[in-house]
Amino acid sequence: MKPVVVTDIERADAAAIEALGAHGVATVHEAMGRSGLVGASVRPIQEGVRIAGSAVTVLCWPGDNLMIHAAVEQCREGDVLVVTTVSPSLDGSFGELFATALQHRGVRGLVTTGGVRDVADLRAMGFPVWSGAVNAQGTVKATAGSVNVPITVGGTVVRPGDVIVADDDGVLCIPRADAGAALAASDARVAREAESRTAYLAGELSLDRNRLRGVLDELGVRYLTAAEYEAEHGRE
Amino acid sequence: MKPVVVTDIERADAAAIEALGAHGVATVHEAMGRSGLVGASVRPIQEGVRIAGSAVTVLCWPGDNLMIHAAVEQCREGDVLVVTTVSPSLDGSFGELFATALQHRGVRGLVTTGGVRDVADLRAMGFPVWSGAVNAQGTVKATAGSVNVPITVGGTVVRPGDVIVADDDGVLCIPRADAGAALAASDARVAREAESRTAYLAGELSLDRNRLRGVLDELGVRYLTAAEYEAEHGRE
Amino acid sequence: MKPVVVTDIERADAAAIEALGAHGVATVHEAMGRSGLVGASVRPIQEGVRIAGSAVTVLCWPGDNLMIHAAVEQCREGDVLVVTTVSPSLDGSFGELFATALQHRGVRGLVTTGGVRDVADLRAMGFPVWSGAVNAQGTVKATAGSVNVPITVGGTVVRPGDVIVADDDGVLCIPRADAGAALAASDARVAREAESRTAYLAGELSLDRNRLRGVLDELGVRYLTAAEYEAEHGRE
Amino acid sequence: MKPVVVTDIERADAAAIEALGAHGVATVHEAMGRSGLVGASVRPIQEGVRIAGSAVTVLCWPGDNLMIHAAVEQCREGDVLVVTTVSPSLDGSFGELFATALQHRGVRGLVTTGGVRDVADLRAMGFPVWSGAVNAQGTVKATAGSVNVPITVGGTVVRPGDVIVADDDGVLCIPRADAGAALAASDARVAREAESRTAYLAGELSLDRNRLRGVLDELGVRYLTAAEYEAEHGRE
Amino acid sequence: MKPVVVTDIERADAAAIEALGAHGVATVHEAMGRSGLVGASVRPIQEGVRIAGSAVTVLCWPGDNLMIHAAVEQCREGDVLVVTTVSPSLDGSFGELFATALQHRGVRGLVTTGGVRDVADLRAMGFPVWSGAVNAQGTVKATAGSVNVPITVGGTVVRPGDVIVADDDGVLCIPRADAGAALAASDARVAREAESRTAYLAGELSLDRNRLRGVLDELGVRYLTAAEYEAEHGRE
Amino acid sequence: MKPVVVTDIERADAAAIEALGAHGVATVHEAMGRSGLVGASVRPIQEGVRIAGSAVTVLCWPGDNLMIHAAVEQCREGDVLVVTTVSPSLDGSFGELFATALQHRGVRGLVTTGGVRDVADLRAMGFPVWSGAVNAQGTVKATAGSVNVPITVGGTVVRPGDVIVADDDGVLCIPRADAGAALAASDARVAREAESRTAYLAGELSLDRNRLRGVLDELGVRYLTAAEYEAEHGRE
Repeated sequence: MKPVVVTDIERADAAAIEALGAHGVATVHEAMGRSGLVGASVRPIQEGVRIAGSAVTVLCWPGDNLMIHAAVEQCREGDVLVVTTVSPSLDGSFGELFATALQHRGVRGLVTTGGVRDVADLRAMGFPVWSGAVNAQGTVKATAGSVNVPITVGGTVVRPGDVIVADDDGVLCIPRADAGAALAASDARVAREAESRTAYLAGELSLDRNRLRGVLDELGVRYLTAAEYEAEHGRE
Repeated sequence: MKPVVVTDIERADAAAIEALGAHGVATVHEAMGRSGLVGASVRPIQEGVRIAGSAVTVLCWPGDNLMIHAAVEQCREGDVLVVTTVSPSLDGSFGELFATALQHRGVRGLVTTGGVRDVADLRAMGFPVWSGAVNAQGTVKATAGSVNVPITVGGTVVRPGDVIVADDDGVLCIPRADAGAALAASDARVAREAESRTAYLAGELSLDRNRLRGVLDELGVRYLTAAEYEAEHGRE
Repeated sequence: MKPVVVTDIERADAAAIEALGAHGVATVHEAMGRSGLVGASVRPIQEGVRIAGSAVTVLCWPGDNLMIHAAVEQCREGDVLVVTTVSPSLDGSFGELFATALQHRGVRGLVTTGGVRDVADLRAMGFPVWSGAVNAQGTVKATAGSVNVPITVGGTVVRPGDVIVADDDGVLCIPRADAGAALAASDARVAREAESRTAYLAGELSLDRNRLRGVLDELGVRYLTAAEYEAEHGRE
Repeated sequence: MKPVVVTDIERADAAAIEALGAHGVATVHEAMGRSGLVGASVRPIQEGVRIAGSAVTVLCWPGDNLMIHAAVEQCREGDVLVVTTVSPSLDGSFGELFATALQHRGVRGLVTTGGVRDVADLRAMGFPVWSGAVNAQGTVKATAGSVNVPITVGGTVVRPGDVIVADDDGVLCIPRADAGAALAASDARVAREAESRTAYLAGELSLDRNRLRGVLDELGVRYLTAAEYEAEHGRE
Repeated sequence: MKPVVVTDIERADAAAIEALGAHGVATVHEAMGRSGLVGASVRPIQEGVRIAGSAVTVLCWPGDNLMIHAAVEQCREGDVLVVTTVSPSLDGSFGELFATALQHRGVRGLVTTGGVRDVADLRAMGFPVWSGAVNAQGTVKATAGSVNVPITVGGTVVRPGDVIVADDDGVLCIPRADAGAALAASDARVAREAESRTAYLAGELSLDRNRLRGVLDELGVRYLTAAEYEAEHGRE
Repeated sequence: MKPVVVTDIERADAAAIEALGAHGVATVHEAMGRSGLVGASVRPIQEGVRIAGSAVTVLCWPGDNLMIHAAVEQCREGDVLVVTTVSPSLDGSFGELFATALQHRGVRGLVTTGGVRDVADLRAMGFPVWSGAVNAQGTVKATAGSVNVPITVGGTVVRPGDVIVADDDGVLCIPRADAGAALAASDARVAREAESRTAYLAGELSLDRNRLRGVLDELGVRYLTAAEYEAEHGRE
């Protein structure tokens, strides 16, 4: 793959970004048919923060952050920087100086499969980060990569201009073309969940609400008292 | 193993649960002869919370939370739900709606080798969780499993009605039959530790208090000054 | 290797310790030519704390904390205890009683590749810890090891009397002989970074400030608009 | 848990052992309702070997093989030694001298969650091993454990006298009381599989043989040509 | 993502498949600009085998192999089956019966991020497999997935009809559209390597052949004798 | 750390290398007081091969093999190349062309914490390798490192000119200055083990031979029959 910096990318729609962000990662993921997560190993360095934005993607060489330098210029208000490496690397390729530059440009946060450092500063300045590690290990600026090409992050393909939503549950990528459908499905899901919540607080069981007793029965799940179970299995 | 939901299980004694909970995981674990931990990979999603309760156990298929639905009905005031999967899975099989239903029933918290989601909500509503991961990945309700059968969690067997204690140090299972002995041994241990604490604050060394100088000597540990060591080994 | 406790070690210079500590892990690591980190798997159990001190080293057998008992006596005001095991072990070999004894002696904190427990107490008493795990699993006092010999922690050799700096970014070891040079280089780095910060806040790009456009060009990185990229690659 | 060596254990039935061994791990595991595996991280050090025997269990302290010494005496013709540690350890607690002693007693092989060494010798002498690692790291003989108590290996409880089957696919534990039922179910399964094999070699599809087309249809799986798919999704 | 089985996919060109297969994974990967590998955790269960074919892709639910049943029908002579799961799973979703059916249809082998079993049979029958694990754990046939949609395997996107090459070094995916360019670049690379091999056997150094002495010099790498180094650094 | 290539290093004594190599990894490791192993994650790519030689050390940047090119020139007959990276990397930085050049110079093998590729060729040409992974992922030649400086490999410090022994059990580093003592201790150990082997084949137990019955007794290990155990614990 020849290294390239792609400029003038199309962004996700700002209204869709806001609306999807309001729903959060778990809800939109379910509404999308349980897809789009970037994997459980990319974790927030802060608690209680949710962001949404339009992806600017970066593919770096391990141990090298040259292309993050190139990516800063491609970022603008409302973007989320999404970084991965050609082969696995947890080196600390991102720190407070990058965050200062990006915050100045209105970037909403960073998602990276790699490591970050200066995390006390990042938390203090309110620049949200989801990363594969906290790691002070420094990097060089010697090897080419690409900006704004499709990358895979935790098994999910992220394309420039896709919608990124990130919160305490993780990071989700919604393909730009699917944003409208994902939003409609999320709205519907939230409505259903509100009804379920009310029902559960009134004592209804999800077994009944979701008609799962029949499913258990079909699958051959038997109900036994503890005494009956012990009679069958002995004291385990 | 045929799938089964066991009802009418015997619970651990409420007074023993309270007393063991007051001692915490590390103390009771030591008092039990250093056994009963569910493994260092099950971690709290919150800080500074300790719970104790009677176990309701759930064995799920990976990627499937059907049996958690079945388990809710078997839970009552003072229980702790303990969930694992037939083969390793970190999917997010538990979230805020389950917590709402369980909290409504007086359940004290969740312990799972799997993943959880909606963690911002779980923290906000004060439903304590110890889990193998935070992970938004959704699950299905398609495959049978069991409720209230013995399960192994991190190498420890948890049986329905065992005492579960969980805090910042991890999760401990005390077999119901051993609760009394564990409590007595914990009381004694705490008393000894209080004396040690006082002694250490007065400057006594654990080397002396535990008579370890003789142990070191028998094991052939020599005391050398840095100068003597360098004479033997050179500058390393 | 014969077991030994080395006494009367030389400490790092107190002024150098303070000055290096003020710079923090990431800065000094970079200033040292990107060396000295003990690895990304040793993580703080608290947030927002930075310490610096002179290393007292401990090499334990897995599942055994005998030599930590021996090490307490060798610690004094301003030291940091650095513990590892002969083979990998995450057992909870350190807890509140050790911390009480060490805090009484003026020790600044613990760095260990192993596990710690009583973490709620450790946080409450303000004894800082960086560890490989939080784990209640108890240990024995049966097998010899060494105190104040060179040990390797996460690939970095730590010698007694080296400077340890630890903060939210991780743990750094500065060889005692290199402390002066590391400090001078850190001072210079901080000055340069302050200038860069000002420049970035004024809108300058690191691409320009670090003269990286030429690097990208030499490496064959091309700039394409999204339209040009799609013409070459099709819609991916 | 108080340390104990249990003697005079009841063994599994020799004929059942032979017959289950002939079926192999995958077949009996399925026939038991997909239970009993000791986990995918315990792997053979040799290829193409299958053993079956009656379990002698050992629980060791990490970094310590004292209880394997105690276990040798409890082994006899037809046994399989099954070893685990109180907390995770891959140290090389077993080598050629143990194998010599066990082979002399007619023991059929070793299953351990820990490490083994002298593997060239073990392969040469034909003593089969399934282990968590190959690791030369030596151990001590200083801390108590137990022989012939129930242990958990990879999430499965192994009791003394259970049937162990091990081959290239891994290691399976069949509770002694379930051996008869497991054998009958395995025989039936093998017969069914033979019919399936013949059918597949004649070109029949498992989709038809297992009546899965209806399942796919109920689950909403649609069949589209590549052209129809591209019309819906665009060129991905 | 809605579940779908895509039929009538376009295959990679047979001649290109053969030619790329003859070059092997490492050569074609380099020739493609170091891209296309499916990750170091997918390993062969046999030694010394190389295959190449056209990809048929399968996306399964964890713990479930329903869609592999659906995929068999879509396979034909010269294909390679490529399987992954929605979330990580090492369950043994593939064994000898599937291999029998696929071998009957002329399929060249299996690549899976999941587990396989019956590996002794698979080796004996000469059906090549690259997998994430050997694991006897059985699966169910209860949840929908897709066949012949783009999937990501170890960070690389595999589309139906892409060229798969697999050997002892791992597994490579060459996008169908890039096969010609990859082949030309591989041919050139092999020619260059043959010249290098001859040169090295004649004693030439890669330092000279690749003009790296200048690179080392520019990067500030100094040459010191051991005596000079010790004078600078002391005896380490 | 400033990058440097150290020339004219002192080698380990050839006779000591041969003699230590004849004893093998496990024996010499024990004889050295259980030290010197490079960690269980560096594994042979071949079976049944043992080598011994004098270390030439290489420290590379992740994803970069420039310094291996520089190291070739520093290698001569009887050396073993030992490679690690500044931060963890499993990229395939070594393949058949390097092996051809090194074999031509009489180098005995490679030990690396990183990855290797062309493993079918390496096995065919008889160039022995112990590595952290088999991985086709290619590397660049862009960033400086060092040759023949002390490096840490799996927690063990390897200095140029140390003795390396590697076989199926793993890789051992014997400091050059300790080679004589290690050899004498290994000889003694082998003699003792031969006596033990004879004794075990005559039916003696290691419990008796090593006087461990007293140890068990002192540690409070009780002997119970299965009937007595069940009377105490119930049927578990």
